[in-house]
Amino acid sequence: MSDNSPLRPPLRLGIAGLGTVGIGVIKIIRRQAALLEDRAGRPIAITAVSARSRDKDRGVDLSDYAWEDDPVALAKRDDIDVFVELMGGHEGPAKDACKAAISAGKDIVTANKALLAHHGQELALAAEAAGVRLRYEASVAGGIPIIKALTEGLAGNEISRVMGVMNGTCNYILTQMQATGRGYNALFEECAELGYLEADPNLDVGGIDAGHKLAILSSIAFGTQVNFDAVELEGIQRIQLEDIEHAAEMGYRIKLLGVAQMTGRGLEQRMTPCLVPDSSPLGQLEGGTNMVVVEGDAIEQVVLRGPGAGEGPTASAVMGDVMDIARGLRIPTFGQPANTLRPVTGVKAMKPAPFYLRMVLLDKPGALAKVAAVLGDAGISIDRMRQISHDQKLAPVLIVTHKCTRDALDTALVGLAKTNVVEGEPVAIRIEKV
Amino acid sequence: MSDNSPLRPPLRLGIAGLGTVGIGVIKIIRRQAALLEDRAGRPIAITAVSARSRDKDRGVDLSDYAWEDDPVALAKRDDIDVFVELMGGHEGPAKDACKAAISAGKDIVTANKALLAHHGQELALAAEAAGVRLRYEASVAGGIPIIKALTEGLAGNEISRVMGVMNGTCNYILTQMQATGRGYNALFEECAELGYLEADPNLDVGGIDAGHKLAILSSIAFGTQVNFDAVELEGIQRIQLEDIEHAAEMGYRIKLLGVAQMTGRGLEQRMTPCLVPDSSPLGQLEGGTNMVVVEGDAIEQVVLRGPGAGEGPTASAVMGDVMDIARGLRIPTFGQPANTLRPVTGVKAMKPAPFYLRMVLLDKPGALAKVAAVLGDAGISIDRMRQISHDQKLAPVLIVTHKCTRDALDTALVGLAKTNVVEGEPVAIRIEKV
Ligand SMILES: NC(=O)c1ccc[n+]([C@@H]2O[C@H](COP(=O)([O-])OP(=O)(O)OC[C@H]3O[C@@H](n4cnc5c(N)ncnc54)[C@H](OP(=O)(O)O)[C@@H]3O)[C@@H](O)[C@H]2O)c1
Ligand SMILES: NC(=O)c1ccc[n+]([C@@H]2O[C@H](COP(=O)([O-])OP(=O)(O)OC[C@H]3O[C@@H](n4cnc5c(N)ncnc54)[C@H](OP(=O)(O)O)[C@@H]3O)[C@@H](O)[C@H]2O)c1
Repeated sequence: MSDNSPLRPPLRLGIAGLGTVGIGVIKIIRRQAALLEDRAGRPIAITAVSARSRDKDRGVDLSDYAWEDDPVALAKRDDIDVFVELMGGHEGPAKDACKAAISAGKDIVTANKALLAHHGQELALAAEAAGVRLRYEASVAGGIPIIKALTEGLAGNEISRVMGVMNGTCNYILTQMQATGRGYNALFEECAELGYLEADPNLDVGGIDAGHKLAILSSIAFGTQVNFDAVELEGIQRIQLEDIEHAAEMGYRIKLLGVAQMTGRGLEQRMTPCLVPDSSPLGQLEGGTNMVVVEGDAIEQVVLRGPGAGEGPTASAVMGDVMDIARGLRIPTFGQPANTLRPVTGVKAMKPAPFYLRMVLLDKPGALAKVAAVLGDAGISIDRMRQISHDQKLAPVLIVTHKCTRDALDTALVGLAKTNVVEGEPVAIRIEKV
Repeated sequence: MSDNSPLRPPLRLGIAGLGTVGIGVIKIIRRQAALLEDRAGRPIAITAVSARSRDKDRGVDLSDYAWEDDPVALAKRDDIDVFVELMGGHEGPAKDACKAAISAGKDIVTANKALLAHHGQELALAAEAAGVRLRYEASVAGGIPIIKALTEGLAGNEISRVMGVMNGTCNYILTQMQATGRGYNALFEECAELGYLEADPNLDVGGIDAGHKLAILSSIAFGTQVNFDAVELEGIQRIQLEDIEHAAEMGYRIKLLGVAQMTGRGLEQRMTPCLVPDSSPLGQLEGGTNMVVVEGDAIEQVVLRGPGAGEGPTASAVMGDVMDIARGLRIPTFGQPANTLRPVTGVKAMKPAPFYLRMVLLDKPGALAKVAAVLGDAGISIDRMRQISHDQKLAPVLIVTHKCTRDALDTALVGLAKTNVVEGEPVAIRIEKV
């Protein structure tokens, strides 16, 4: 501590969850004690910790910290100021312990997007009523300080759109498919072996984890209550290598892209595969890196990019929140009081967009004309169409439409199914303007 | 205002400077009054304004605000809480009025990088002694909330390096040279006509404006007193079209790149043209957009990108600071108390790097061998060398060295001058690992 800073009491943390993130946080606090104290004006101390197994060797010495088997008991301890929830899961101990912390008047820092996406409004109301802080920088896009940017740095903006690639595993799979020509299944297996997948892999590849994050960002951006159920979700499981290759030939990349924007009829939130121009910042994003794009009336567009997961980056985000609390920052959970957040209904994408369509036609005379007719009837005009050379009775066809609504497209897809010239289900992927 | 928010007094601003940025701020406050109040929990009000000319039509109705001819008088008014300095210039009225504001107990928001780069330490000490806040988000990289990210979001990190492209005009010139094949002088003229240049264009193309910004970021990143005089500055005036083209052929772009890193002997700060890989985020940055890269022990690397100037983006950054003050955020100017910031001496780049060299050799036998010998004597080995086909007595030669120190390179340049086979001065540009 510098000589002339006044003596201020330490900020005392109770950390529940000693896995990747929890241990990362402890390492930072031990390694950078002097630096943190200089910046916070007071020491950052750890009082007590909790995890399931007390005996596990976690590679750091925990003997200075009190141990609690029960995270709820940890949350209530008199000798902590901040309850740091790094267990995960949106029910059970994480939720119980956060509620206990609020009742006991403790501030909370968490990395738990599932918890926030499912119970953000309830927890924010409770925290604000109790006068405690609930902070969650690490829950979205790992180390990128996007919660802070959106809640504080861009607070002068009416936000028009938030977009993001926020699941590193999905982006890794998609970029590796393109780079190596390997298929989805092989890369899924590789991710499982590398430990890149959640215990329930559908959280990753089904877009759920990224959807949680989008729902949190939407709430801040649009002053609405978190509404994860209103997020339109589509995973990457159905993306074929050939779609990635065709997209690349046309100058696009396929990304699992989250988009949130307010419409006159409700909040549009979707986390779905999209085509984006390969020269755009989002198109150029490779591997496990995350990117969030925020557009507002004054800022125009700002892009943040960084590691979306991992011990160091996620712990960095947790520490950002801890430091804010140590320094006395106090703002409402989602940027305005939770009791002023508006409930919203979700709406499907309404803004027209071009779509990429791939379908396989039976090699019958007039098949292509029938497809064109169905699209035309739905009000969809064709920008580009390409029939891929083929030997068999099946003719793959690629179409890029002009802008059309998702409704029109769905009408067309129903119509196509009735033509008897389309084999299987067409693939339809939105082309997002970024 | 939402019905159930408690009545809180407005935050009252006095705005000195009604140019691009000042008018942008007024527009946001008028357009988004309700949104700002929801987020800040209190209205944001403008009480009084000041500029040189009272009569100028500025496109917005100023009749609700008191007028002051003298910004110092504005800064002292009883009916303002925050003095918003948007005049510019590091001496004269901007500095006088900020000092007056501090004495009068007013918080300050400014966009003035020159002021901060030259007097940041003095002003921060005075502000902290008086218990007022001095905020300057808009002074670096326009709308990008980089001050907040570095001071707060990344406060858990020991920062190892900060890099940035932070002058949009220079980046515009460099990317246009590459895209259009036009020379520096033509593009400089175009920028002058488009109003992209400061009144003293050397502030832009000489790297001074960007150097101011780098000095500010260094202070936060490394806990040091702002030391603009220690920034090694080199402008873009000497960059030739052929250097841009040769760099492109080798997979590089030339950027006016700021780099700050702490060394054992002092703080290395430089704002100079560098080669960066064309596939890197920095390499891909086109036009007037800015980008800042921050590297730390936990975060690894985070990249922020956005508009570096302009009415809306700059006003967005000013409003971020205003909102922080309205919400009660209070942290030291540079992230830790100004009286704990260490004074630093500047050091020249010490880390070895590869360099790009272009020189013109007289077409004498053994010329190339002499060059190679001089480099070898300086301990510099050659990675790639290319003699460009030529008809005349002059032979242009391109060399990419292996990693060497700047000292070694300077020794070699002195040696080359003595060989009598090099025409004019060689061009030497560092290749930065990004
Ligand atoms: N890992 C990342 O890169 C990352 C990135 C962003 C956000 N997050 C979020 O951060 C949180 C933690 O993630 P993680 O990767 O660190 O998880 P992890 O490695 O699986 O660690 C979870 C920890 O919580 C403990 N725990 C689980 N249930 C518990 C219970 N009932 N009582 C007490 N302790 C319990 C575990 O104890 P044992 O060790 O004894 O089993 C373990 O120490 C999650 O919400 C996750 O979504 C993680
Ligand atoms: N423009 C940008 O994109 C941008 C981006 C980042 C940071 N900044 C910084 O923001 C600040 C303002 O920039 P700007 O572009 O808005 O400048 P600007 O358009 O030239 O406006 C400057 C304003 O200050 C007023 N002014 C100058 N001297 C004054 C004095 N002695 N007393 C009272 N008023 C005085 C001028 O009055 P009159 O109008 O009556 O002449 C004018 O309204 C500068 O520090 C600049 O570096 C600008």
